[in-house]
Amino acid sequence: MTAQLSKKGEAWSARFSEPVSDLVKRYTASVFFDNRMAGADIQGSLAHAEMLAHQGIISQQDYAEIQRGMAQIQSEIASGQFEWLLDLEDVHLNIEKRLTELVGDAGKRLHTGRSRNDQVATDIRLYMRAAIDDISGLLRDLRLALVDLAEKNADTILPGFTHMQVAQPITFGHHMLAYVEMFGRDAERMADCRKRINRLPLGAAALAGTTFPIDRQRVARTLGFDDVCHNSLDAVSDRDFAIEFCAAAALVMTHISRMSEELVIWMSPRVGFIDIADRFCTGSSIMPQKKNPDVPELARGKTGRVNGHLIGLLTLMKGQPLAYNKDNQEDKEPLFDTVDTVTDTLRIFADMARGITVKPEAMRAAALQGYATATDLADYLVKKGLPFRDAHEAVAHAVRTCEQRGCDLTDLTLDEMRAYSPLIEADVFSVLTLEGSVAARNHIGGTAPEQVRAAITRVRAQLA
Amino acid sequence: MTAQLSKKGEAWSARFSEPVSDLVKRYTASVFFDNRMAGADIQGSLAHAEMLAHQGIISQQDYAEIQRGMAQIQSEIASGQFEWLLDLEDVHLNIEKRLTELVGDAGKRLHTGRSRNDQVATDIRLYMRAAIDDISGLLRDLRLALVDLAEKNADTILPGFTHMQVAQPITFGHHMLAYVEMFGRDAERMADCRKRINRLPLGAAALAGTTFPIDRQRVARTLGFDDVCHNSLDAVSDRDFAIEFCAAAALVMTHISRMSEELVIWMSPRVGFIDIADRFCTGSSIMPQKKNPDVPELARGKTGRVNGHLIGLLTLMKGQPLAYNKDNQEDKEPLFDTVDTVTDTLRIFADMARGITVKPEAMRAAALQGYATATDLADYLVKKGLPFRDAHEAVAHAVRTCEQRGCDLTDLTLDEMRAYSPLIEADVFSVLTLEGSVAARNHIGGTAPEQVRAAITRVRAQLA
Amino acid sequence: MTAQLSKKGEAWSARFSEPVSDLVKRYTASVFFDNRMAGADIQGSLAHAEMLAHQGIISQQDYAEIQRGMAQIQSEIASGQFEWLLDLEDVHLNIEKRLTELVGDAGKRLHTGRSRNDQVATDIRLYMRAAIDDISGLLRDLRLALVDLAEKNADTILPGFTHMQVAQPITFGHHMLAYVEMFGRDAERMADCRKRINRLPLGAAALAGTTFPIDRQRVARTLGFDDVCHNSLDAVSDRDFAIEFCAAAALVMTHISRMSEELVIWMSPRVGFIDIADRFCTGSSIMPQKKNPDVPELARGKTGRVNGHLIGLLTLMKGQPLAYNKDNQEDKEPLFDTVDTVTDTLRIFADMARGITVKPEAMRAAALQGYATATDLADYLVKKGLPFRDAHEAVAHAVRTCEQRGCDLTDLTLDEMRAYSPLIEADVFSVLTLEGSVAARNHIGGTAPEQVRAAITRVRAQLA
Amino acid sequence: MTAQLSKKGEAWSARFSEPVSDLVKRYTASVFFDNRMAGADIQGSLAHAEMLAHQGIISQQDYAEIQRGMAQIQSEIASGQFEWLLDLEDVHLNIEKRLTELVGDAGKRLHTGRSRNDQVATDIRLYMRAAIDDISGLLRDLRLALVDLAEKNADTILPGFTHMQVAQPITFGHHMLAYVEMFGRDAERMADCRKRINRLPLGAAALAGTTFPIDRQRVARTLGFDDVCHNSLDAVSDRDFAIEFCAAAALVMTHISRMSEELVIWMSPRVGFIDIADRFCTGSSIMPQKKNPDVPELARGKTGRVNGHLIGLLTLMKGQPLAYNKDNQEDKEPLFDTVDTVTDTLRIFADMARGITVKPEAMRAAALQGYATATDLADYLVKKGLPFRDAHEAVAHAVRTCEQRGCDLTDLTLDEMRAYSPLIEADVFSVLTLEGSVAARNHIGGTAPEQVRAAITRVRAQLA
Repeated sequence: MTAQLSKKGEAWSARFSEPVSDLVKRYTASVFFDNRMAGADIQGSLAHAEMLAHQGIISQQDYAEIQRGMAQIQSEIASGQFEWLLDLEDVHLNIEKRLTELVGDAGKRLHTGRSRNDQVATDIRLYMRAAIDDISGLLRDLRLALVDLAEKNADTILPGFTHMQVAQPITFGHHMLAYVEMFGRDAERMADCRKRINRLPLGAAALAGTTFPIDRQRVARTLGFDDVCHNSLDAVSDRDFAIEFCAAAALVMTHISRMSEELVIWMSPRVGFIDIADRFCTGSSIMPQKKNPDVPELARGKTGRVNGHLIGLLTLMKGQPLAYNKDNQEDKEPLFDTVDTVTDTLRIFADMARGITVKPEAMRAAALQGYATATDLADYLVKKGLPFRDAHEAVAHAVRTCEQRGCDLTDLTLDEMRAYSPLIEADVFSVLTLEGSVAARNHIGGTAPEQVRAAITRVRAQLA
Repeated sequence: MTAQLSKKGEAWSARFSEPVSDLVKRYTASVFFDNRMAGADIQGSLAHAEMLAHQGIISQQDYAEIQRGMAQIQSEIASGQFEWLLDLEDVHLNIEKRLTELVGDAGKRLHTGRSRNDQVATDIRLYMRAAIDDISGLLRDLRLALVDLAEKNADTILPGFTHMQVAQPITFGHHMLAYVEMFGRDAERMADCRKRINRLPLGAAALAGTTFPIDRQRVARTLGFDDVCHNSLDAVSDRDFAIEFCAAAALVMTHISRMSEELVIWMSPRVGFIDIADRFCTGSSIMPQKKNPDVPELARGKTGRVNGHLIGLLTLMKGQPLAYNKDNQEDKEPLFDTVDTVTDTLRIFADMARGITVKPEAMRAAALQGYATATDLADYLVKKGLPFRDAHEAVAHAVRTCEQRGCDLTDLTLDEMRAYSPLIEADVFSVLTLEGSVAARNHIGGTAPEQVRAAITRVRAQLA
Repeated sequence: MTAQLSKKGEAWSARFSEPVSDLVKRYTASVFFDNRMAGADIQGSLAHAEMLAHQGIISQQDYAEIQRGMAQIQSEIASGQFEWLLDLEDVHLNIEKRLTELVGDAGKRLHTGRSRNDQVATDIRLYMRAAIDDISGLLRDLRLALVDLAEKNADTILPGFTHMQVAQPITFGHHMLAYVEMFGRDAERMADCRKRINRLPLGAAALAGTTFPIDRQRVARTLGFDDVCHNSLDAVSDRDFAIEFCAAAALVMTHISRMSEELVIWMSPRVGFIDIADRFCTGSSIMPQKKNPDVPELARGKTGRVNGHLIGLLTLMKGQPLAYNKDNQEDKEPLFDTVDTVTDTLRIFADMARGITVKPEAMRAAALQGYATATDLADYLVKKGLPFRDAHEAVAHAVRTCEQRGCDLTDLTLDEMRAYSPLIEADVFSVLTLEGSVAARNHIGGTAPEQVRAAITRVRAQLA
Repeated sequence: MTAQLSKKGEAWSARFSEPVSDLVKRYTASVFFDNRMAGADIQGSLAHAEMLAHQGIISQQDYAEIQRGMAQIQSEIASGQFEWLLDLEDVHLNIEKRLTELVGDAGKRLHTGRSRNDQVATDIRLYMRAAIDDISGLLRDLRLALVDLAEKNADTILPGFTHMQVAQPITFGHHMLAYVEMFGRDAERMADCRKRINRLPLGAAALAGTTFPIDRQRVARTLGFDDVCHNSLDAVSDRDFAIEFCAAAALVMTHISRMSEELVIWMSPRVGFIDIADRFCTGSSIMPQKKNPDVPELARGKTGRVNGHLIGLLTLMKGQPLAYNKDNQEDKEPLFDTVDTVTDTLRIFADMARGITVKPEAMRAAALQGYATATDLADYLVKKGLPFRDAHEAVAHAVRTCEQRGCDLTDLTLDEMRAYSPLIEADVFSVLTLEGSVAARNHIGGTAPEQVRAAITRVRAQLA
C-alpha cells in the first residue's frame, strides 16, 4: 500500500476505469505553486494529529510516528531534497505520500476526520495570517521612514497642488504625513481582515463535518486561531477572506501608485523637487544622459496587477454553488502574487524613502509662482468684515490684473491693492508670505509646522 | 451680490475671460446626481455654522439666519419645489446660492473657513454612514429570514454537493446557515468600514487647513463623528473608504450571486428542490408555460455591476497626485449605484426568502442517488481499525461495482460487502442511512440537526 | 382584450396565481432605461411586420394597421406625450400595448414568430450600430482637430520624455500625431466590432426559432444587416459583441486618459507648455487664483467608469448557461453609459483641441535642459567608427561631468569633449542643436518636421 | 570592453555614482519571465542587422559575425546551456552581452539605430503574432470537435432552457453549434487583433526615431509585418494591441465558462445528460464515490484569471504620459499567462469534447417535463386565426390546469383542450410531439435537424 499514493489520482483511483490524461494532469495540478504552503500544511497536520491522538481516534504511537515523519519531511524541504511530483497533484498529497513512505500506516491514518477541502482552507488561512503579519510590519516600517522624512522637512515649504495647479503653500512634512495616514488605514484594514482569516475551518471535512469525535476548539487553540468556522459548508467553500485581503492590498498599491506618481513628477527636470538615490534608478540603453525613477514607475504599474487579481478572485467566486468546486483552486496564484507584490513593494519603498533628497529651493521657487497666497488675502478681507464670497471675488479681480501684468500679488502697491478693496491695509503684506500662510493653518490636521510636529509625535506614539 | 452665484462658475468667474461652454457645463456638472446628498450637505453646513458662531468667526445673528434659510431650503427640497440648476454645477453651490437669496450676507459667510473640497468629503461620509447603517439593518433582516428557514428545515435532508456531484447528505437548515455565516461576515466588514468613514474631513478646507480659528473636534461631536481626519491633504484627496465600501459590497453581491445560482438550479425542473412564490417570478412573452426565477437571476447579474463600480473607483484613484483632482467627481455615481443595488437586493432577498417553498421529497430522492453515504462506510471501516487511505480504497471498489450494476450500496448483501473488507458486519446498514449519516456529524459546525439548532440559537442571540 | 397588457406581467399572467410584488416590479423593470431603444424597437417591429405580411403570416391589412399605429407612437414619443409605464416592465411591452390600444388585433399579431428574446437582441444591435457610427464620426473629428494642431506645430520643438525625464527633442506636431495614430486604431476596432454587431438575431424567437415560415434574410436586408445570426440559441444568449464594444471603448478612454494626463501636466505652472481656453476650465470656491483643467481631469477619471462597465459585462456573462437568462437585462445600463461617456468625451475633446494654446518658448527652454541631444552625440561617435556601446559610455562620462558642473554639453569646449573621445571634431556642435537633432530623425515615423508633414498628408488622405 | 555588460546596469552605468541595490535589481528585473521572447528577440535582431548592413551602417563582415553569434546563442538556449543572469536585467541585454562575448565589436554595433524601447515592442509583437496563430489553430480544432459532436447528435432532442426552466425542445447538435458560432467570432476577433499587431515598431528607437539612414520597410518585409508603425512615440509607448488581445482572450474564456457551466450541470446526477470520460475527471481524497468534472470547473475558474489580466493591463496604461515608462514592463506577465491559459484550455477542451458521452434518454425524459411544446400550441392557434397574444393566454390557462393536475398537455382530452379554445382540433396532437416541435423550426438558424445539418456543412466549408 505504500505505493498507493505514488501517482496523482491514486488517492481516489479505485473508482476510475482510465487514468487521468497527461494534459489534464498538468492542467489541474497545483503542486508547483501551492508548495509554498508546505510549512502551513505540516503545521496544520500536526495540530490535527495531536487532537486525533488526544481524542483517542488514533494512538499516541501513531501521533509520535507522524511527528517523526513530519520532522524529516520538513528538513527535506528545507534542504531542497524533497521531490515534488506532478503525479501527486498538490502539496497535500505530496507530503502525505512521503509521510506514508516514512511511517507506514500511521501516515495513512492522518487523513482521518478531515478532507483536502478543509485541509487546504486551513493551510491558506495559516499562510495568509503570516503574510498579513509581514505586511503589517512593512507598513509600519514605511510609515516610520516617511515620518522621519516629514520630521526633517516640517518647515520645508512647497506649493500644495489641486488639479496640478498651485493652490496654497504647504510643508513637505505635511505632505509626507498624508501618506502616513493612508498607510495607517491600510494597516487597519489588514488587521480587520486578519480577524476574519483567523478562524479555523478544519473539522468541516469535505463539506458536512465528520463522524469522528473531533475537538475543533482544541485544534484552534493549538494553531492560534481565535475561533472555529461555525458552518462546515461555508468553511470549505467561501474565499471571501482572500478577496477582502486582495481589496486591502489593492488599496495599499493604490496609495503606492499615488506616491509614485508624485515622486516621478517631482523628479522630472521641470519640477525638480527631489532626487532619488542612484541605487533606485536605472539608465537607458541608448540615451547616455538618462536617470530614470524605475522603482516608483514599476510600483505604479504593479497596481494593475493587484487590481487584476482582485477582479480575478471576484470573477472566480461569482455564481459558485456550494460547497467546494474545483474553480477554487484558482484562488492561490493571484493571492500569492498579491502577497509578493505588496511585500516587495513596501520593502523597497521604505528603503527608497530614505534615499530621497529634498530640494527646498526648487520647492520654494515653485511656491512663489501661481498666487499661492491668494486665499490668505481673501481670508484677510473676511476678517476685516467682508463676506467670504465677496472677498473671493475681490481677490479674483486682483489676480486677473496680476496675470495680465505678469506679476505677483506682492508686486502690487498698497494703493493698487486697495482698488480691489478699501479694507486692505499695510498689514496685508505679512499674510501674503509663504511662511505666514503656512503658519496660519494651525489647527489639527493643518499644515502649520507646529501641527506637523504634533502629528509626528502622535504617529510615533501609535507605532511605538 | 445676490446674483453672484446665479450661474455656474460665478463662484469663481471674476478671474476668467470667457464663460464655460455649455457642453463643458453638462460634462462637468454633478448636480443631477449629487443632489441626493442635499440632506447631508445641509446637516454639515449647519454644524459648520454652529462652530463658526461658537468660535466668534461669524455672529450668532448670522448663524440664526443660516438656520432659518436652511430650514426653508429643506422644506423646499422635501416638497419638490427646490429648483436644481445645471448652471450652479453641484448640490453645494445650488444650496448656497439659494441660502444667499434667502438670507443675504449671512449666506455668503457660511463658506468661511471651508472649501468645496472638504465640504464634499464631509457630505459623502455622512451619506455613506447612513447607507451602511441601512445595509447593516438589511443584512440582519436577511439573516433572520434565513435563520427562520433553517429552523423549519433543521431536519430536512438534501444531498450536499461538491463539484455539483452528490457528496454527503446534509440538512437544508445547515445549508441555509452557510449563507447566514457569509452575510454575517459581510456585516462585520460593513461595520469595520464604517469606523474609517466616521472621521471628519471638514476643516481641511481646500487642502491645507484654514487660517480661521476653527474647532474641528466640536464639529465632529455635533455630527457624530468618532474623530477628525488628521491630515488635511489626505482628508480632501483620498477616497479609499469608498473603495473599501464597494469591495465589501462586491462581497455581499458575490454571496448573493452564489445563493441565486443555487436557487435557480434548485428551481429547475430536473432538480425541483424548491419553488419560489409567483410574486417573485415572471413569465414569457412567447412561451405560455414559463415561470422564471427572475429575481435571483437578476441579482446574480447585478454582481457584475458592483464589481464594475469597484474597478471603476480603483481605476479612478490610480496614480492621482495629491491633493484634490476633478477626477474624484467620478466617485459618486458608482458609489450611489452600489448603495442602491445592495440595498434593493438585500431587501428583496429577505422578502423572497420567506416565499421559498421547500420540497423535502425531491431533496430526499436526490440524496438517495449518488452514494452519498460512501464516506460513512469508509469512516466505519476506520473505526474498525483500517487506516483511512485503505478504507477509502475498499469503498471505492464497492462503489465501482454498484455503478456497474446500477444499484446502491445498501443494495449489496452483507456478504457482498464483506468481499471489500472482512471488517464489515451487520451494523453497517445503520451507518448507510441518510439520517444516520447526518446525525453522526455532530460537532460545532457539523450538519447534525442538533448542531443546526445550536447554531440557530447562537445566531439569534447575536442578532437580538 | 385591449386591457390585456395594461399591467406588467399581463403578457404572461394567466399562468400565475398571484401578482408580482411592487418591489419586484421595480427591481426587475427596465423601461426607464431601455426606452432609449424605442426608435430601434419600432424600426425592428416594422421590418418584422413587413416580412410577416410578405410571407402571408399576417395580412397586408394588419401590416398597414401596424404601420399606422407605429407612426403615431413615434410621434407621441417624439413629442414627449408617450406615457412609459413601470407596470409594463420594458420598452417592448409598452410599445406593443399602446399599439394594441391603437390598432386592436393587428397589434396582437405583431409578436407572431418572434419573442422578446430575439426582439431585444435586435434592438440592441440596431442601437449599437448607430452608436458606433456616431463614435466613428467623432473619432474622425478629433483626429482632424489633432492633425490641425500638429500641422501648426510641425516645427515646434519640445523635449520628448521617457520616464518623465528629458529624453530627446521632438516636435509638438509629432507628439500630436501619436494620438492621431491611437485614435485611428480605436476607429479600426470600432469598425471591426460593427461587423459582428451587424448580424440579425430576429427569427431566433425565444431560443429555438419559430414554426412560422419566416424569411430572415428579408428582414436582414430591410434593416441593413450584413447577415443573419446562424444559430438561434447563440443569437438570443450571447452578448460578446457588447463586451467587445466596451473593450474598444475602454481603449478609447485609455488613450483619452493618457492625453489628459499630459494636458494636465503641461498646464501645470512648473511645466507651462500649454494653456487651455477658459471655457474648458473652472475655478475654485475658495482659492480665487485657480484655473483648473477640469475637462481633461474629469475625462481621465471617466476611464474608470468604462473599465468598470467592461468588467461588469464580463462578470455578467461568466458561467451563464444557455440560452437566455434574466441576468442579461443588466447588459443595458453599462452599455448605454459607455456610449454616452465615449460620445460626450470625444465631442468635448475635439472642441477642446481647438482651444489649446501652445507655448513654444517654454517647450524650447525645457528641451535645452536635461542633455536632450546626448544620443545625437553618441550617434555622431558611431558614425566616426566607434561601436555603439562604447560611444554610449563615452557620452555618459561627459554627461556626468556636465551634471557635476551644472552645465550643458554645448558648454564644454572642443578640447574638453575630446577628453571623452578623440573622434570628436569641430562639426560636433551642429549635431548638438535641437533643430539638428530633430531634423536628423528623418525616416517614416521619425520626428523630423519633414516626416511630420508627410504623416499629416497621409492621415488627411485617409480621413478624406 | 567585453566585460562592459557583465552586470545589469552596465549598459548605462557610467553616469551613475552607486550601483543598483540588490533589492532593486530583483524588483525591476524581467529576465526570468521575458526570456520566453528569446526567439523573437534574435529574429528581430537579425532582421535589424541585415538592414544595417544593407544600408551600409554596419559592414557585411559585422553582419556575418552577428549571424554567427546569434546561431550559437540560439543553440545554447535550445540546449539549456544559456545562462540567464539577473544582473543583466532582461532578455535583450542577456543576449546582447553574450553576443559581444562571442563576436566582439560587431556585437556592440548591433544596437546602432535602435533602443530597447523599440526592440521590446518588436519582440512582443512577434511573440504575440505567433501566439495568435496558435490560438487560431486551436479554436479551429475545438470547433471541429464540436461540429463532430453536433453531427452525431443532429437529431438528439433535449429541452432548451431559458432561466434554467424548460423552454422548448431543441437538438443537442443545435446546442453544440451555438458554441461553434461563439468560438467562430472569437477567431474573427483574434484575426482582427492580429492585423493591428502585425506592424513594425522597430526604427522608433527610444521614442523619436534615429539619426541613422535606416530602412524600416525592409525590416518589416524581412519579419513579415504588413506595415510599419507610423509614429515613433506611439510605437514605443502604446500597448493597446496587448489589451485588445486580452479582451479577445477574455471572451474566449467567457465562452469556455458558459460551456463549462453547462457541462458541470449536465453531468450532475439530477440532470445526467452527459458523462465525461474518466481521464478528464478526478476523485476525492475523502469521498470514495466521487467523480468530479475538474476540467470544466477549473476552466470556468480560469475566466477570472484572464479578466483580471485584462483589468491589470488597462490599469497599467491608464493615465500614462508619453512616451515609454517603466510601468510598461508589467505588460508581459499578464500577457504571457493569458496566452498560456487560453492555449492550454482550448487544447484540453478540444480533447475533452471527444470524451463526452451523450445520454439521449435522460435528455428526452427531461424534454417531456415542463410543457416544452406549449409555444407550439400557441402557434397552432395563431395559424387557426387567433391573434398571438390571445393564443398565448389561452395556452397559459391550459398549462395552469395541467400543473394543478400534475399532468402534461398531451394528457388532456381534445374536449378538455377545446375548453381553452374552440379552434383546437384533432390535428393538435402532432404539434405537441417533441419531434414535431423541433422539425417545425426549419429556417436558417432554427433547431430543426435539417437546419443543423446545413449549418454543419456551412461551418465545415469555412474551416476547410
